[in-house]
Amino acid sequence: MPLQDTSSRAGQERLGAGSEAAPAGRRRDQESEHTLRLLAANRIAIEGIMPEIDGGRFPAKAVVGDPVTIEADVFGDGHETIDAAVLHRPAGSEAWQETPLEFLENDRWRARVVFPENRMYQFTIIGWRDLFGTWRKDTAKKHAAGVDIALELEEGRRMLVAAQSSDRASAADKAELADVLSALASLESGPERLGLLSSNAVKALMERAAVRTNLSRYERTLQIFVDRKIAAVGAWYSMFPRSQSGDPARHGTFSDVIDRLPYVRDLGFDVLYFTPIHPVGSTNKKGRNNSLISEPGDPGSPYAIGSSAGGHEAIEPKLGTFEDFDRLVRAAADHGLEIALDFAIQCSPDHPWIKQHPEWFDWRPDGTIKYAENPPKKYEDIVNVHFYRDALPSIWYELRAIVFLWISHGVKIFRVDNPHTKPFPFWEWLIGEVRAEHPDVVFLSEAFTRPKVMKRLAKVGFAQSYSYFTWRNAKWELEKYLTELTQEECRHYMRPNFFTTTHDINPRYLQSSGRAGFQTRLILAATLAGSYGIYNGFEICEAVPVPGKEEFLNSEKYEIRAWDMDKPDNIKWDIQFLNRLRHEHKALQQFTNLDFYNAWNEDIMCYGKYSDDMSDFLLFHVCLDPHNQHGADFEVPLWRFGLPDNASIEVEDMVTGHHFTWHGKYQHIHLDPYYKPYAIWRLIPPGAAR
Amino acid sequence: MPLQDTSSRAGQERLGAGSEAAPAGRRRDQESEHTLRLLAANRIAIEGIMPEIDGGRFPAKAVVGDPVTIEADVFGDGHETIDAAVLHRPAGSEAWQETPLEFLENDRWRARVVFPENRMYQFTIIGWRDLFGTWRKDTAKKHAAGVDIALELEEGRRMLVAAQSSDRASAADKAELADVLSALASLESGPERLGLLSSNAVKALMERAAVRTNLSRYERTLQIFVDRKIAAVGAWYSMFPRSQSGDPARHGTFSDVIDRLPYVRDLGFDVLYFTPIHPVGSTNKKGRNNSLISEPGDPGSPYAIGSSAGGHEAIEPKLGTFEDFDRLVRAAADHGLEIALDFAIQCSPDHPWIKQHPEWFDWRPDGTIKYAENPPKKYEDIVNVHFYRDALPSIWYELRAIVFLWISHGVKIFRVDNPHTKPFPFWEWLIGEVRAEHPDVVFLSEAFTRPKVMKRLAKVGFAQSYSYFTWRNAKWELEKYLTELTQEECRHYMRPNFFTTTHDINPRYLQSSGRAGFQTRLILAATLAGSYGIYNGFEICEAVPVPGKEEFLNSEKYEIRAWDMDKPDNIKWDIQFLNRLRHEHKALQQFTNLDFYNAWNEDIMCYGKYSDDMSDFLLFHVCLDPHNQHGADFEVPLWRFGLPDNASIEVEDMVTGHHFTWHGKYQHIHLDPYYKPYAIWRLIPPGAAR
Repeated sequence: MPLQDTSSRAGQERLGAGSEAAPAGRRRDQESEHTLRLLAANRIAIEGIMPEIDGGRFPAKAVVGDPVTIEADVFGDGHETIDAAVLHRPAGSEAWQETPLEFLENDRWRARVVFPENRMYQFTIIGWRDLFGTWRKDTAKKHAAGVDIALELEEGRRMLVAAQSSDRASAADKAELADVLSALASLESGPERLGLLSSNAVKALMERAAVRTNLSRYERTLQIFVDRKIAAVGAWYSMFPRSQSGDPARHGTFSDVIDRLPYVRDLGFDVLYFTPIHPVGSTNKKGRNNSLISEPGDPGSPYAIGSSAGGHEAIEPKLGTFEDFDRLVRAAADHGLEIALDFAIQCSPDHPWIKQHPEWFDWRPDGTIKYAENPPKKYEDIVNVHFYRDALPSIWYELRAIVFLWISHGVKIFRVDNPHTKPFPFWEWLIGEVRAEHPDVVFLSEAFTRPKVMKRLAKVGFAQSYSYFTWRNAKWELEKYLTELTQEECRHYMRPNFFTTTHDINPRYLQSSGRAGFQTRLILAATLAGSYGIYNGFEICEAVPVPGKEEFLNSEKYEIRAWDMDKPDNIKWDIQFLNRLRHEHKALQQFTNLDFYNAWNEDIMCYGKYSDDMSDFLLFHVCLDPHNQHGADFEVPLWRFGLPDNASIEVEDMVTGHHFTWHGKYQHIHLDPYYKPYAIWRLIPPGAAR
Repeated sequence: MPLQDTSSRAGQERLGAGSEAAPAGRRRDQESEHTLRLLAANRIAIEGIMPEIDGGRFPAKAVVGDPVTIEADVFGDGHETIDAAVLHRPAGSEAWQETPLEFLENDRWRARVVFPENRMYQFTIIGWRDLFGTWRKDTAKKHAAGVDIALELEEGRRMLVAAQSSDRASAADKAELADVLSALASLESGPERLGLLSSNAVKALMERAAVRTNLSRYERTLQIFVDRKIAAVGAWYSMFPRSQSGDPARHGTFSDVIDRLPYVRDLGFDVLYFTPIHPVGSTNKKGRNNSLISEPGDPGSPYAIGSSAGGHEAIEPKLGTFEDFDRLVRAAADHGLEIALDFAIQCSPDHPWIKQHPEWFDWRPDGTIKYAENPPKKYEDIVNVHFYRDALPSIWYELRAIVFLWISHGVKIFRVDNPHTKPFPFWEWLIGEVRAEHPDVVFLSEAFTRPKVMKRLAKVGFAQSYSYFTWRNAKWELEKYLTELTQEECRHYMRPNFFTTTHDINPRYLQSSGRAGFQTRLILAATLAGSYGIYNGFEICEAVPVPGKEEFLNSEKYEIRAWDMDKPDNIKWDIQFLNRLRHEHKALQQFTNLDFYNAWNEDIMCYGKYSDDMSDFLLFHVCLDPHNQHGADFEVPLWRFGLPDNASIEVEDMVTGHHFTWHGKYQHIHLDPYYKPYAIWRLIPPGAAR
């Protein structure tokens, strides 16, 4: 005979039948009910959220004002209509804002959300069953199939009645519901009543007013940090302040640097980056070209930080005073430039910390400090602090204080030297601390190391990262690497900064490429990445190496240099031109909006950059072979504008300004590196502004 | 002048310099220290865990005794040596067991863990810095470079001394450490002392005894449910008990079914699945071929569950009693067969629940119950319960009680009808409840619906799932689908059961393929999936459709059938042969160990299945075209055995038993579907047992 409504008792009897279950079973029934309620609360499946980094462990990244694409799989049991939305709010605030999700296909939903402020935001996903939507869909089908729908119409009417007492219904909604209901009462025929109940007005009304049945919520609240623009888009120029006097015999000062600002501004850069400006140690000071013996007057490496004049919180006296520095920061701002400082956590043997905080250093059995080393190599002019044991937490606070000190002097961008040799938790904590007070501060990770280590540094909070670009020269490897960076999951948290050269890296490609190679690497860096940078000397194609090495001969790391930036065959025109293009074109202010197109020549790369709305579309051809002319047939991406292969499209040559028309999908390009190894075209689809 | 060790005060001053920070800053300093400690506790980065389903929201699946591959990215800052391990334990127990992770490449680590019991397990990952390992590596480098290592040797010695007071060191370890230290003291030369300190014995000793520096732990504890074998590997035979009398005029009984057990056993099946055995309703009973009007004597659909004789907890009286059923379950066990019951949560209009629990049903304005429907289609003989509103939680408990009832009668396998039309949370709760008492119970999800819905059901706990196999016929679509199932993330939680036919599905391919097509679909199902099944009649190539539909004419759903399984041209030999192969070969007891190989003919599929240790390797050729002979050159996967392309390999023809040798990588196959549309080869690498 059938079970009575004592199912849990019945359950017990059954449980009793099996093993040792009965007492356990009874104990378990409270848990069981608890679990049941917890699970039942989320009837709608919500999964596959994008962006979600490591199950929500790390925030994704965005930029103020740039739409963020948020996607999720949202679906219910059965065949009923469901609906879904993104909830988002500034971290720390109570109220959620709601942005509807649009259905894509295969249970995937998408929204584009614009975050207005430079700060941390939170978001999550909600989904619910739309019973009125289901009624609408099913009743239409039945009516179309000639089924009698009298009962369905009454069921629909009752849904409106129920909505009148919903918490979601505003006074206006309730009034509108009342109007619809009385209008409905006045209608005779089924089709008329169906027409009213199925109207878009009633649909919208019910979406606003009706209870959200089985309203479910994703179990995690995710985070997204919204940076200011410069974190994602900027052109960097890098120099040694002490080399700005124009005279190798005279140590440069901040005043000399101020005199150079118009030059850097005229090249169109956004960020001016300095190698360390702190007092340089003298013990084991390095001589020219990294020699262990230094001559009198050799300045030593600015990375050997700390002397009797102070450490990371101080300024090398030869450069000037804090007042001079503040003047420089202001002058840079007047020239539209931001100063980026080098944050290199390492010490010369003369750093004051060694006496003040012996517990921050590794001491050896003979009472000496362990030098920085990469066995068997030793860096005799540098010793490293450590972050754990009895340095935890004192040095963490000290370093935080130092960063806040420079922030208080107007520095909002820090290029961090070798962050991968310091603990990840330190960076996650430090950057979190800084952001809490100064969300506009940007940290660049100077890590050239294993891929997952570089990605981890981006996850823990670095706003941008050095990349492998410097060593990607072939077409296939550039396309493969850029596809990874722009398409794979790392695009949500890692922003590469493409440096063509640095004071540490004189790439082999440029050592033999001549001017054309510099132009090629410049356009690739300036147009493929949101942020890119050059080290001074690049504009005059400086490439003399330490024989056999990827280092510069007579490196400024070990001596003061004077630069003649007006040397013939310089590429300043290209730099100015490309930096202007970067400022004028939305297409170049988005990193992930990149396509590669067919060009049938392994030495000619063809790619497109475009704005979200496709109103700005730039097509690039770059010759990767600096020594020979190359031609290639290529595909004009007409399909990106919904045009057929035989369509015509108007084109502007961005170098010459010429306007003409391409007819059909296949065109030919010829590039002569001795003249110019690249071409840039603006594609103007029919109807777009010229 | 330099900062004093009052860095937090110093920090405050700096903070003071910036905006409204000071008071906020002071408040934040406790949080700040708290966060600092939390973050600092996990210096080693641990990410990219596999298997981890939806950030740990759902358990992965495994099988008792089968090694589970667990992987993670584990890395630290700097260049020091690190080490890592998997921690695992039965859910609910305190103590963790540890299995070392092996380094693969690119910061990836892997372990293979065997879980011995049928139950839920937990696991997580730990990593730490191996300072002695770093010392070993660096000192060796320096020594090789001719650097004086006297200090290094002393540092190494001190590490051993420190290990003597480590908590990890056992008494035996401490004794061994003491011995090594005194041996060390007695050694004069540096090289000798280095030799001792670098010995593998000391390495092993230090790995056991030394403190694990910066021991870090993954933030989540993950789960993995370990099923018994039948959840992953089994051959299913499906029948209607009432059709087993051999006389369409007589309703079959459980005794008739008992008489059929030797037949099913002799075919080599593991699971015998019954359509519902509950009382069948009479209201709106369906007639033959799904007609709305039934003749007297028509049995009605067994899916119209419930009559005055009872509901889901009862047995259709014509089949027998609970005593008969228990006898059947025992007899099946004696024949090496497990009984699988159909769990179909739906009611005929005569189901006792309708009077006892009107709150479980959807009532319409006219006082009738809503029939099951898929607008405009209606299923007049079925009404559905709902799970929310005032049915929550009473019906959840009722259904749990019903499952426990059948478990108490020896049923451990349930084929769930249309689980995707019931709430996901219900299944997650129910399966969790059942597993807690009976981890050996297996639920099969009969959901043919959208991919993400099918995957969700697997995530919430179904041990196996119906699949799209039934509609994948072309080589490219079979290879694509199997690659998804065996290689993508779903392999960790979804186990497809490949049914060639069901009582609901008479695939178009088989309707016109003739005998050869049945052999083809049989070998694909039996060798590509861990679990597969046929519906009775398949062995005699039954394929008469309802014209234009993928349904069987004269379906057993609506009438009692009698089957002559000895009809000529039956394929019982193939079924016996393949089921024997499945039992005898480890290669066929693993789902994901599958490779596809080149065979240059779109109608000939070539694939390999192998055991983890490669000791058992089967190569399959299947002709997909049931109407024409086909030949193809194919690649012998010599490389899987590390053999060159010109190597020879011994081969056994599994159909004929012939042994011979293939010379070289390219061979030719010819398949005549009229004779046999498949070939199976055992590859016997040099040195393996014949």
